[in-house]
Amino acid sequence: MADLKTARHELVMANRILFNEGIVDAFGHVSVRHPDHPDRYIMARARAPELVEDADLIEFQLDGTPLDAAGRVPYLERFIHGAMYEQRPDVMSVCHNHTVSILPFSISKSVRLRPVIHTASVLGGEVPVWDIADEFGSDTNLLVINMEQGRSLARVVGQGRLALMRGHGSVVVAADIPGVVAACMAMDKNARVQFQALQLGEFIPLSAGELRRRPVAASGQPPLPDRAWEALTRRAGFH
Amino acid sequence: MADLKTARHELVMANRILFNEGIVDAFGHVSVRHPDHPDRYIMARARAPELVEDADLIEFQLDGTPLDAAGRVPYLERFIHGAMYEQRPDVMSVCHNHTVSILPFSISKSVRLRPVIHTASVLGGEVPVWDIADEFGSDTNLLVINMEQGRSLARVVGQGRLALMRGHGSVVVAADIPGVVAACMAMDKNARVQFQALQLGEFIPLSAGELRRRPVAASGQPPLPDRAWEALTRRAGFH
Amino acid sequence: MADLKTARHELVMANRILFNEGIVDAFGHVSVRHPDHPDRYIMARARAPELVEDADLIEFQLDGTPLDAAGRVPYLERFIHGAMYEQRPDVMSVCHNHTVSILPFSISKSVRLRPVIHTASVLGGEVPVWDIADEFGSDTNLLVINMEQGRSLARVVGQGRLALMRGHGSVVVAADIPGVVAACMAMDKNARVQFQALQLGEFIPLSAGELRRRPVAASGQPPLPDRAWEALTRRAGFH
Amino acid sequence: MADLKTARHELVMANRILFNEGIVDAFGHVSVRHPDHPDRYIMARARAPELVEDADLIEFQLDGTPLDAAGRVPYLERFIHGAMYEQRPDVMSVCHNHTVSILPFSISKSVRLRPVIHTASVLGGEVPVWDIADEFGSDTNLLVINMEQGRSLARVVGQGRLALMRGHGSVVVAADIPGVVAACMAMDKNARVQFQALQLGEFIPLSAGELRRRPVAASGQPPLPDRAWEALTRRAGFH
Repeated sequence: MADLKTARHELVMANRILFNEGIVDAFGHVSVRHPDHPDRYIMARARAPELVEDADLIEFQLDGTPLDAAGRVPYLERFIHGAMYEQRPDVMSVCHNHTVSILPFSISKSVRLRPVIHTASVLGGEVPVWDIADEFGSDTNLLVINMEQGRSLARVVGQGRLALMRGHGSVVVAADIPGVVAACMAMDKNARVQFQALQLGEFIPLSAGELRRRPVAASGQPPLPDRAWEALTRRAGFH
Repeated sequence: MADLKTARHELVMANRILFNEGIVDAFGHVSVRHPDHPDRYIMARARAPELVEDADLIEFQLDGTPLDAAGRVPYLERFIHGAMYEQRPDVMSVCHNHTVSILPFSISKSVRLRPVIHTASVLGGEVPVWDIADEFGSDTNLLVINMEQGRSLARVVGQGRLALMRGHGSVVVAADIPGVVAACMAMDKNARVQFQALQLGEFIPLSAGELRRRPVAASGQPPLPDRAWEALTRRAGFH
Repeated sequence: MADLKTARHELVMANRILFNEGIVDAFGHVSVRHPDHPDRYIMARARAPELVEDADLIEFQLDGTPLDAAGRVPYLERFIHGAMYEQRPDVMSVCHNHTVSILPFSISKSVRLRPVIHTASVLGGEVPVWDIADEFGSDTNLLVINMEQGRSLARVVGQGRLALMRGHGSVVVAADIPGVVAACMAMDKNARVQFQALQLGEFIPLSAGELRRRPVAASGQPPLPDRAWEALTRRAGFH
Repeated sequence: MADLKTARHELVMANRILFNEGIVDAFGHVSVRHPDHPDRYIMARARAPELVEDADLIEFQLDGTPLDAAGRVPYLERFIHGAMYEQRPDVMSVCHNHTVSILPFSISKSVRLRPVIHTASVLGGEVPVWDIADEFGSDTNLLVINMEQGRSLARVVGQGRLALMRGHGSVVVAADIPGVVAACMAMDKNARVQFQALQLGEFIPLSAGELRRRPVAASGQPPLPDRAWEALTRRAGFH
């Protein structure tokens, strides 16, 4: 993760890309841990990702307290992000989304989302589902509105890449912003493929060994974010 | 609901947004109750929503009689709107659409559309289906062409948010224009998710308690329309 | 059907609209019977519909002989059109397409496409399937390459609105160009809805009485083509 | 296959077309055999196809050694291409893609992709699946990273048009660039149709005789690439 200016710029681009690629709609959000202050994260004020600009970015303490709100209203569910940064020192970027393709898996009683395509090895394995009702009862509006709920969700993510949120969406984490965008896109594509494969009958998922690998060369830069990131930023209108 | 000028402007924007978001195609319509005259509503002349402009708007009595047609031809099915305003003093905006995702649920003999995602709590519960043939026989063209048919449909909506119309589409109501747009989009997204969840087997719908909640903060403005409305109006080309 | 200039202009627009609306891709074609010479029809030279201009239009005898080819190569499958005009004096426009949504119905051994939504009453009833192998053996490339094959297909259309062509596409006919475009779009939407309804279980199709009706007022102009045609032509870039 | 300048231009266009038509995303690649040197092929450096320009093109030996890399990084999986050119003197163009529609078929234990629509006769018959684990174990990242793996895949393609790669994508070959683009698009459309047809029950696939035919006239130019190629190049922004 480079300097603050780069982090803020990547975050603005990620907002637009995630909308452009159908991962988020008017709702959903993405954040980055402050490159100089690991006890802070940066995220837009409550605005649709497709409209986010640098002037919308707010710095938060991990408990969700805004440090420079200046009248701007934060996302209600920012606690999803703070709790992940709190639990996972390795995580530098978090995305909360309501991607359509994973929602059926979030409410299914019998089928779990699991990696079946090579780019989805980053998902790590069978994807856990966090049901807010398990700890907080069946009378909520499903939103994560405080740190207690955020930490409950973070425990289900554990040391993994993501968790689904029953009837709501998902939270995805990564070591950098391009990585969280790539993971969200892999999650979405995998869900579409797995859903169709289930209609065809039995299928071959990624093996334990394949799950440990990443689709990169044995040595050298991981091609996944670079080649895609250049294309995604261009598609979203950035040079 | 603000003044007449705002209501008319929001109505024009809603027409474009509903088309842009795939809720309506060349057919379908949206109206608003007159902010100053609860015994009137405002809707475009018979024109595809994507083309509606302020000059297309006509004021109607609740029984569908145009007050200022000036040669402009009204929608044949305006009675859907008038009957809802007549039966529901709380309703300030109505949308009739033929959204593809809900049509299979409108003709299914065994499956009812029901809220499974958090934004669809606004749908209230299992969605009723109005079959025109029940009261008007099996020899109609399925269109609601008079107040008698409109009132029959309104009775099935009852105190709820919407009803499906067998083999035809849906009618959706709300307390304001952004609310009716949000409800239509939630209906559409929920239908897509529920359809796929059904392919996976048993699933967890929203609980009774979750249905009563709205995905907003315990206190403060409902984030649903605002954040989305800003994005939706921009996508449709309005500043 | 108006004068020749109007017919040619509508035909050019229909080509662009059918592509814009996903009915045809680089293949597929639409024609119009010559308004002054019922023993001729007009269709583009072999060019993707999205690119067709007035200069591409060729006049044909019903047997497919071009009258003014001037070096332009006609569509190989023009015999689909000529045979329909020959058999059906009431038909003034024909479209041959490979629309994805109807192809599964064209090869299904057990399920027939049938009207389930109100705009699809124009399809008339259960849609017949023409299998070229029935008369011409299992060694063809499925294309209709002469009048004998065109007439075989036309017999299956009979007095109806359309027929599917096994593993290939469909032929759709109407009394004018806006009508053939509307029928193609209704066919496509109906197929999408019926396909999903089948996944849900038993469903309610349009009744015999509903099939006879059109979604228009009891008296007055059919709203279906007008409102849609204005929108469709605009979407395709025409004023 | 014409001269080098034409081949390079067609290759650049193919990159953009394949992205535009949804065959490839930021990953996937297409190459052409050098028209003057059958022991070389030309392909872009590791860049998303939608961005490829002539300056990105590199010439390779069939074993994947770049001849004029000049600091540009090649695709890791170029061995897919070299192995095909090596095994198949008739092949002049190769595409590797991760097209979503075929991925479920690549992991299905019971269902094989097979031609059901007329444009897919070019696929030749039931499409074989290459599973990297068969020869290289269950501990790979599924990528083809050397000639040994490339040749293993090429053996499964054999004398055919394509093979699926389990959990990964496909490799498609043709006698020229427009042909490989057309084959990829036919593969994609066929997969969508076959998938839906399977949901409906039993279906009629192309017969053995129909598989041998191509949807062209008995004599004359194959219409498939020409009419489509003109449209596809225009859609991708080329005159």
